[in-house]
Amino acid sequence: MSCRFTNVFSTSDSIRILAVVLFFSLVFSSSVYALQGADVEVLYTKEHGIVPNTKQDSTRAVVELIEKAVRSGNKKIVFAPGTYHFYPEMAHEAYTFISNNDEGLKRVVFPLFGANNIEIDGQGADFVFHGGINPFILQDSANITLRNFSIDFYRAFHSEGKILAVGDGYMDLHIPEIFPFRINAAGILEFLAADDIRPSKIEKNIKLERRLTTKKAEEYAFKRMLEYDPETRATPYMAGDLHSGHWLSAKKLEGHRNIRIFHPVLKGTVGNIMTFSSKYRRFPGFVVSDSSEVLLDNITIYHAGGMGVLGQRCHNFTMQNSKVTPSEGRIISATADATHFNNCTGKVALINNLFENQQDDATNIHGIYAMFYELLDEHTAYIKTMHPQQWGFDFIDVGDEMELVHGKSLRTYGTNTIQSVTRINKEINLVRFDKPIDSRIKPGDSISEIRDYPFVHIKGNTIRRNRARGMLLNCRGKTIVEDNYFHVPGAALLFEGDAVNWYEQGGVTDVTIRNNVFDNSLFSVWGKAIIDVDAGIEKAFQAEVRYNKNILIENNTFNVFDERLILDIFSVENLRFTNNTINKTTAFPERELTTEPFFRVKHSDNVIIADDNKFVGFD
Amino acid sequence: MSCRFTNVFSTSDSIRILAVVLFFSLVFSSSVYALQGADVEVLYTKEHGIVPNTKQDSTRAVVELIEKAVRSGNKKIVFAPGTYHFYPEMAHEAYTFISNNDEGLKRVVFPLFGANNIEIDGQGADFVFHGGINPFILQDSANITLRNFSIDFYRAFHSEGKILAVGDGYMDLHIPEIFPFRINAAGILEFLAADDIRPSKIEKNIKLERRLTTKKAEEYAFKRMLEYDPETRATPYMAGDLHSGHWLSAKKLEGHRNIRIFHPVLKGTVGNIMTFSSKYRRFPGFVVSDSSEVLLDNITIYHAGGMGVLGQRCHNFTMQNSKVTPSEGRIISATADATHFNNCTGKVALINNLFENQQDDATNIHGIYAMFYELLDEHTAYIKTMHPQQWGFDFIDVGDEMELVHGKSLRTYGTNTIQSVTRINKEINLVRFDKPIDSRIKPGDSISEIRDYPFVHIKGNTIRRNRARGMLLNCRGKTIVEDNYFHVPGAALLFEGDAVNWYEQGGVTDVTIRNNVFDNSLFSVWGKAIIDVDAGIEKAFQAEVRYNKNILIENNTFNVFDERLILDIFSVENLRFTNNTINKTTAFPERELTTEPFFRVKHSDNVIIADDNKFVGFD
Repeated sequence: MSCRFTNVFSTSDSIRILAVVLFFSLVFSSSVYALQGADVEVLYTKEHGIVPNTKQDSTRAVVELIEKAVRSGNKKIVFAPGTYHFYPEMAHEAYTFISNNDEGLKRVVFPLFGANNIEIDGQGADFVFHGGINPFILQDSANITLRNFSIDFYRAFHSEGKILAVGDGYMDLHIPEIFPFRINAAGILEFLAADDIRPSKIEKNIKLERRLTTKKAEEYAFKRMLEYDPETRATPYMAGDLHSGHWLSAKKLEGHRNIRIFHPVLKGTVGNIMTFSSKYRRFPGFVVSDSSEVLLDNITIYHAGGMGVLGQRCHNFTMQNSKVTPSEGRIISATADATHFNNCTGKVALINNLFENQQDDATNIHGIYAMFYELLDEHTAYIKTMHPQQWGFDFIDVGDEMELVHGKSLRTYGTNTIQSVTRINKEINLVRFDKPIDSRIKPGDSISEIRDYPFVHIKGNTIRRNRARGMLLNCRGKTIVEDNYFHVPGAALLFEGDAVNWYEQGGVTDVTIRNNVFDNSLFSVWGKAIIDVDAGIEKAFQAEVRYNKNILIENNTFNVFDERLILDIFSVENLRFTNNTINKTTAFPERELTTEPFFRVKHSDNVIIADDNKFVGFD
Repeated sequence: MSCRFTNVFSTSDSIRILAVVLFFSLVFSSSVYALQGADVEVLYTKEHGIVPNTKQDSTRAVVELIEKAVRSGNKKIVFAPGTYHFYPEMAHEAYTFISNNDEGLKRVVFPLFGANNIEIDGQGADFVFHGGINPFILQDSANITLRNFSIDFYRAFHSEGKILAVGDGYMDLHIPEIFPFRINAAGILEFLAADDIRPSKIEKNIKLERRLTTKKAEEYAFKRMLEYDPETRATPYMAGDLHSGHWLSAKKLEGHRNIRIFHPVLKGTVGNIMTFSSKYRRFPGFVVSDSSEVLLDNITIYHAGGMGVLGQRCHNFTMQNSKVTPSEGRIISATADATHFNNCTGKVALINNLFENQQDDATNIHGIYAMFYELLDEHTAYIKTMHPQQWGFDFIDVGDEMELVHGKSLRTYGTNTIQSVTRINKEINLVRFDKPIDSRIKPGDSISEIRDYPFVHIKGNTIRRNRARGMLLNCRGKTIVEDNYFHVPGAALLFEGDAVNWYEQGGVTDVTIRNNVFDNSLFSVWGKAIIDVDAGIEKAFQAEVRYNKNILIENNTFNVFDERLILDIFSVENLRFTNNTINKTTAFPERELTTEPFFRVKHSDNVIIADDNKFVGFD
């Protein structure tokens, strides 16, 4: 367990605050973390020059108010309802490593760095962000509540167009005004920044503006394409990513903003919406880093240039009554996962939320593996963080107990404690262990942190119309998934974990999945089963390892349109599938089976598919 | 004057060192800064596991040796002759703002941060850098000598090809093996990283390597093209930049590594070399920042991904007996200026160097302007750094005396002193002045630092075959340019300065240009005259301002192939052109004149073109 949180409550201020914090029952009630007591000073933004419903840039005034609140803590900041605009120019700046998103020198509007006991109540306010800007970053903060507001970006980081025609190696599109683009002199399609640069206080410098705009165009580059049906607002049956690369030859067609693009992979249905997925993940909506007791309540994320919410090394996080949903005129909300949690502790709770149209999973809750890169002596090794979007993710601290893992089998050799860590750079740490390193450890093997694995509670959420999967459950703490509705093109629930590709630590130990509706999911390419229990274990070791343990699946409803896998079980010890109802629908055409119907079990022990499951409507 | 250097010599160690430093006469002798006394400890690299002529990655061992030497100072590090290889993986990491190059989180092999009295003697060693890596960064250091080695990159950041054919909207090229590329599935040309990733200590992770290589390909993107003649090794007569953008449609042709690229601007001569100029300037060779008494002696820069040497806020810098020159098989050396100096003080000396085939000027010595962005009250303003490659350039310090300047005329209103500075972000500072801000100052006007403008001594250098100009002389200190040879396609010497485009401060006060040979320069598009004295002053103000002062041009030889301008004089007070020889050559075809022959004078006073100049070979 990292020592990061041990000092959070060490000041007398914090202790006074703690005394009145309403702590949330770890199990079932919804949570209210922040202080609502006599000690709270309420700051009304309108008294600090922050005025809604004007075109003014509110960034500087908000940054200063936040910084002021953070200095003393114990503040409630209340916005007047209305729309506020934020631009990068006067924002707070900080270099930030954001797991599974893009690191960088960020411009931040709400910099909650080292904050203690702060509530921000938007009272329904709409926060509109312009250009390359990061809405919220929480770092080393505690007792933070954010509620009752929306975030959106004036120009989305992805782009969209309506399919007009499709032919051999080309596609014709109409690109709406809200997705600025040009076809450059080389005949290449470039999506551009919107012309929403803050009205300059000085005469426009045309040459400089041009340079800046060109620079900004890179923010809107794409990496692949994916089609959506405007009727269902979901990806069509069996539609997958088109791997277009970042640049396409294009030409203008007759008709305003109609273009033809060229690439052999192009396919789609006339009338559908073709999306250009964002190349980068630089601007996630809410970054919650090394922070504890964080509540997001009644927040709407219309757009994020990356994940909607990214929690890393956070302790006790709840998101409730919130939405990730696209704004008017767009089919995409966040350009990556709606939420994502990495090496968190205590609790992660997602309660009564709507997660729709994000371009990746609704959530992924996991740990990370780092690799033994070079063994220097009995006690010392260079440890390398392998995935570029994990670089700079510090999780190895002095005194931490680490699990030493055989990379190819994910088998645990044992534990060891960190004596010292020297950061070489964002990829590599020089690590000294208390005890001699297990002699079976070879370069390529991994370590992960043994910590207070969080209780994961996912209840009452609707997950639909996104790209890829529903939720990735890779947490070793107690995990309860109940009363949710899933309509997703891939696996609704995926268990994985590997130390060779994503370096995401999984291996559940106690999972209950109950009272959910899995509604015509798995209608496309992202997954092998509606509930897909997997692990990245090489063939030679699959017989001997059971990576996932103790999974109960009960009282769920599965609406399915064919007999493909409801449940794919790999490397599991103890799984019970009981009292579920499986209804036959005609939502999509049936597909040829490539496995036995409904269930597959590989390299697992004590798997019980009970007799009490009901199959309705099948011959 | 900034207070940065006041503490450099404040420790007793430093004082002892200073006592034996051989200080260089400010005027004519060559310089030896570093200590050669009894107190110096000599560290031989071979005793620290750093072995030449192997394929091993020497990065970690060198970083550790440098860090050790820097901790105590007063060290001479001696390499054995031979070739050493360096890779980013184990390099030192630091976020660095590098004026006129690209800021970023850098991987540094020689991190001379806070170093005092260090000499590195390569004894002829060749340092070869692989991938995205920064060779030398000096920051807050003093008494640093680097000598007797070369730097090169295994894969250049630009690319080259031989022109096979040219047609309407297309060009055929043969791309040598040393410039890896692919034509992707969209039919777009992408230059790629070389396959020189360090042989991994672990089994290759193919998926990850692919992700990393794709990421690295972006390092080799280009921004424009320019032709070179393999016979003269220079740009051809009247050849200029081809504004191709970053991406071109392309297809493979018959013949190994032969391709056709498409763009309406393409033109060139079959047999010539077409270069793809680097999009980025992320990897300059030597960055010298906030450092004093720095000597580069007998250094060869074969390549840099940006400028060869960038000095910012440095004090007393000398580069002598050194070369910027391309390595075997390449026509380009550094991808930007050979050297460049910004807000330096004391002295900048370039003595007996060869600067050839860099893709921009041999040097540019200037200050910077920043802009009054918003006036808050009588004493306080937001000051904005305008040019993106100057962002993060800190030159406004408490106690500094600043010049307040009318932006459009470059006229000085007066001075004021900095009372406080608060950094908002890399673009904007909140600045409070001692005295009320001159009431004539409006948003859009500028400030620059009044400092110990350096003595600039440029002597005995050869400047040839580069893109653009010879040298940009924009320093207010005494400037002597003597005994140099110039054969450049643009202006050999340019004086400029503006507060609307580049925000580079010029305005010379005392310049002597003598005994130089200007050999058939200005044979292309970069400049109006061989000696081009200019300033960025708006028309309405040109009559009233004299931005440049006191320029003496004597005893020089000008070899010219036509009667275009030798000297274009704008906004000058006192200039004397005397006892120069102008020889007619037939090096290039004569061009039609667009001005009077040889000389033009605009908005200047006391300009004397003496009768003693000799014109030889003209009718």
